[in-house]
Amino acid sequence: MPSYTAPTKDTQFLLHEVFKLTEADIPGYAELESDFTNAILTEAGKIASSLLQPLNQSGDQEGCGFEDGQVTAPNGFKEAFDEMKAGGWPGLDMPEAYGGQNMPNVIGTAVGEYFSAANQSFTMYQGLTHGAASAILAHGTEEQKQTYLPPMIQCTWTGTMNLTEPHCGTDLGLMRTKADPQEDGSYKISGQKIFISAGDHNLSENVIHLVLAKIPGGPDGIKGVSLFIVPKFMVNDDGSLGAHNGVSVGSIEEKMGIHGNATCVMNYDDSTGYLLGEAHKGMRAMFTMMNEARLGVAMQGLAQAEAAYQNSLAYAKDRLQGRAVTGAENPDGPADPLIVHPDIRRNLLDQKSFIEGGRAFLLWGAKLIDQAHLTGDAEAEGLISLLTPVLKGFLTDQGYDMTVQAQQVLGGHGYIEEWGMSQFTRDARIAMIYEGANGVQALDLVGRKLAQDGGKHLLGFFERVKTFCKENADLNEDYKTQFIDPLKAASKDLQAAAQFFMMNGMKNPNHALAGSYDFMHLFGHVCLGLMWADIAKTAQTALDSGQEDADFYNAKLTTGRFYMARRLPATALHLSRIQSGADPVMSLDADQF
Amino acid sequence: MPSYTAPTKDTQFLLHEVFKLTEADIPGYAELESDFTNAILTEAGKIASSLLQPLNQSGDQEGCGFEDGQVTAPNGFKEAFDEMKAGGWPGLDMPEAYGGQNMPNVIGTAVGEYFSAANQSFTMYQGLTHGAASAILAHGTEEQKQTYLPPMIQCTWTGTMNLTEPHCGTDLGLMRTKADPQEDGSYKISGQKIFISAGDHNLSENVIHLVLAKIPGGPDGIKGVSLFIVPKFMVNDDGSLGAHNGVSVGSIEEKMGIHGNATCVMNYDDSTGYLLGEAHKGMRAMFTMMNEARLGVAMQGLAQAEAAYQNSLAYAKDRLQGRAVTGAENPDGPADPLIVHPDIRRNLLDQKSFIEGGRAFLLWGAKLIDQAHLTGDAEAEGLISLLTPVLKGFLTDQGYDMTVQAQQVLGGHGYIEEWGMSQFTRDARIAMIYEGANGVQALDLVGRKLAQDGGKHLLGFFERVKTFCKENADLNEDYKTQFIDPLKAASKDLQAAAQFFMMNGMKNPNHALAGSYDFMHLFGHVCLGLMWADIAKTAQTALDSGQEDADFYNAKLTTGRFYMARRLPATALHLSRIQSGADPVMSLDADQF
Repeated sequence: MPSYTAPTKDTQFLLHEVFKLTEADIPGYAELESDFTNAILTEAGKIASSLLQPLNQSGDQEGCGFEDGQVTAPNGFKEAFDEMKAGGWPGLDMPEAYGGQNMPNVIGTAVGEYFSAANQSFTMYQGLTHGAASAILAHGTEEQKQTYLPPMIQCTWTGTMNLTEPHCGTDLGLMRTKADPQEDGSYKISGQKIFISAGDHNLSENVIHLVLAKIPGGPDGIKGVSLFIVPKFMVNDDGSLGAHNGVSVGSIEEKMGIHGNATCVMNYDDSTGYLLGEAHKGMRAMFTMMNEARLGVAMQGLAQAEAAYQNSLAYAKDRLQGRAVTGAENPDGPADPLIVHPDIRRNLLDQKSFIEGGRAFLLWGAKLIDQAHLTGDAEAEGLISLLTPVLKGFLTDQGYDMTVQAQQVLGGHGYIEEWGMSQFTRDARIAMIYEGANGVQALDLVGRKLAQDGGKHLLGFFERVKTFCKENADLNEDYKTQFIDPLKAASKDLQAAAQFFMMNGMKNPNHALAGSYDFMHLFGHVCLGLMWADIAKTAQTALDSGQEDADFYNAKLTTGRFYMARRLPATALHLSRIQSGADPVMSLDADQF
Repeated sequence: MPSYTAPTKDTQFLLHEVFKLTEADIPGYAELESDFTNAILTEAGKIASSLLQPLNQSGDQEGCGFEDGQVTAPNGFKEAFDEMKAGGWPGLDMPEAYGGQNMPNVIGTAVGEYFSAANQSFTMYQGLTHGAASAILAHGTEEQKQTYLPPMIQCTWTGTMNLTEPHCGTDLGLMRTKADPQEDGSYKISGQKIFISAGDHNLSENVIHLVLAKIPGGPDGIKGVSLFIVPKFMVNDDGSLGAHNGVSVGSIEEKMGIHGNATCVMNYDDSTGYLLGEAHKGMRAMFTMMNEARLGVAMQGLAQAEAAYQNSLAYAKDRLQGRAVTGAENPDGPADPLIVHPDIRRNLLDQKSFIEGGRAFLLWGAKLIDQAHLTGDAEAEGLISLLTPVLKGFLTDQGYDMTVQAQQVLGGHGYIEEWGMSQFTRDARIAMIYEGANGVQALDLVGRKLAQDGGKHLLGFFERVKTFCKENADLNEDYKTQFIDPLKAASKDLQAAAQFFMMNGMKNPNHALAGSYDFMHLFGHVCLGLMWADIAKTAQTALDSGQEDADFYNAKLTTGRFYMARRLPATALHLSRIQSGADPVMSLDADQF
């Protein structure tokens, strides 16, 4: 049976030693003292291990039920959901004014990783509610906020996002769902939406669907899309629930993973909806959700990798098989543990160095969001907008690969369901697809984000790396050659790639788009390189100042060196692919495939 | 619903234009005229599409049954198995003397790919029988051959391989299954084996288990292991079936994929077994099976990638989403097909260039086996021994990655089971694990095969590449820069890696083992580079001589250029990882993970 222990020590290290939250000059951050965050993380870790993780495998095996139009979550989910609500966890980083606990995003993200690692399917029910609530918070009228936010922040009501239709996913301009204006200012929504996560279930009293639809007579394509609040049950003036709103579930999907979360076909038949934000500006409102959701999905990629890593590590230490080539390390036993073997270590270190660097990257992203939202810092806003597709695409692709590697450590035991490794892989697979498939993230990055505001956010990123290298090159000679030099080289590859796009993309945009996926990964590696350089600096400084727990800091340095020596050089491969341009990709006629 | 069409044209191109079978001077090859192989491939393709493929998804959904100790394959498998038997397919490349059709391995492999692509779970029942029969053919007494081979070659009886026990997989020296010698020369076998594919089912009258066990008093560890024939039902002198032999199924596993093939826990309780080959030389006999099985597994990796590719390609041509950035290509439709988008093409070409190059690599491997077995060519024998772990590790790792990429083309539809893409991924995953996990393949390659016979097989490989480059550099200037130069560069990377191992592995073998996985992939890329250079030469020559079907040959050149420009440069990354040596991998204490 798989297990999960929240990596609170690592999170604390990042929050306080690497990112120094209390010194960050962001409203609310000064109160995030180490003891305080430790209490939150520890409590969240307990819930993750003892409440959510035990329902992960059973939820996968049982899946959701669908009978007489009603969806049911797996056994135990309702009780656990009630406990989460009682603990106030769903509203952790929501405003106090609507019943939340006002924590910044960085804490919500730190905690979210644990819940997601312990049980992704379960955590999605509250994660989607959070996203929908955020959209109402950002674009709703005060009345809408008063009506929907308190129960959504408590998760008494849950929320969903309705974008995809059978014939369109990425290209939402093709949308057919209609919103007919009514005399009372409301709309009648009709159409079918598919792939609606947490679309229906037995965990909450009401489901608040945020639905994209077209108001007849509006602009063609994506510019004519508006966003609507469509409750499953109508809400009376006093907040009590009224009639059923003609929202029904057509079916639930059989999927590769996340069996515990219901993926629904949703049918809207003249359902009453309320415009959220401005008419025809639905995409903008939806993107509030999407950007948050993308960070949340990046987190899932990391979280499943962590869960899988922990179990593969335990197996590698426990399973006796073969002997170390340099001499028995467990001479009294029948064989040595797997972890003595170089290729097993290579595998585990791929995982570990990705996860610890990726966690830093994710929390840095969350901190940038806080900085942008809470201080109005336009630079932070621009940077996180640039980094969002990188976070989503890189962390979910690599996170998935790491679950596959973790599976491999267990050999045949990784393939049978009993050990739970298959589930980590199957659950992690969706994160590369939903909230914008990773190819679409790459397109967003290269086609939109690079040139945003005259390209200044990318330049700002390079400036940041340069400054970091300059300021820390003198820490010591080893640090310089092992961290600063490789980071510089990787960053140079990224610059060369951006330059290639600039020089050639004007003539033919395919020169840029053919390299978009590689660019996203190249960028991700540079970000992790920067994170590792920062982590290593922190660790080295702690060691130099004689802090306790030298083992912990030394492990950081060793793991970081692995990343810099063995993972970061991937940037050169991505660059060489990018520089091969559009021809290799575009020359083959569609008929010749 | 997914579909499958056997790529007979590509196979024919490889067999006759690239590898020129009839000119190869291998016994039996002269008869393999194009019309003849075309008839076989076409018929096999029909069976794959119309008989096996329709049972693939239903077999996955239904899985195997296990009741009252009896395993049942999914509905329809029995009837299809009978049809396969009636067509004589299981004995295609088995000796006529025992009822086979005497085709060489290269034809068995070509056909096997189709069957495996159409339905991996189904094809494993006969694949394992083939492996077991090969071991009996190689190591059995004439009496054993007469007894077991005719029904096994017909698949009236099926076969299995029993290696793994609960506490040992790779490290078979730890084995506990015992074989007590009896007065009549037979043995009593007792013990438990796990992960036994096709261990029991309702498709055949008898199951012939090949079981590794230890004869008490023999040498310790792996040197004391012997191989036994243990039939499920005893065989009477006249070939009829006698009493049940105390072989029972403890349970069948729930797995990530290959649900249609029963993975059994097998219990042997004083079951009667017959020594196959010499006592204590079981591993040698088992390796006859294993090497063949490894090629078969390499084939599975390729086959699942092909099946997944076909379906992702169909979707990319059919699904309308977005517009080409350079202007609408389907202006009368609501959107352009996915295949206009550069990143979708990048994805599809990754798949296509891997599959077509990989198919060449696999058939080259099969031809080397024929050359070794049928002409006693020691050079071919040495080379295929060297390449077997590369074929297995590289084709299954990359094949799996390609099924994941194929899934990605379909977005959300790739994640739900209805479209079948998830199954390709889930089925392909096992190929990286069984018959020696890919980390073990890498260890076999670097720890054993490189130095075999003084390293002359590796040198022979380099010589082959060098000769090819020399002989073909003058084909034309484009060919030289697009194919020969990159192949040379990649081969140089491989040489540098081997040199690094030689220079450093003596001091500390961990310097070699820490790079073993990267070496396996580096080697695989060079092999595919060589294949593409050969394919491109063939295509260019055909075009130069004015052959019909220029589109086909041009597509080969374009696809090959993609591989050389975008995939082959991975060799430099693998080399840089290898050259980072053991330190990054070995420095972290086990406790610090």
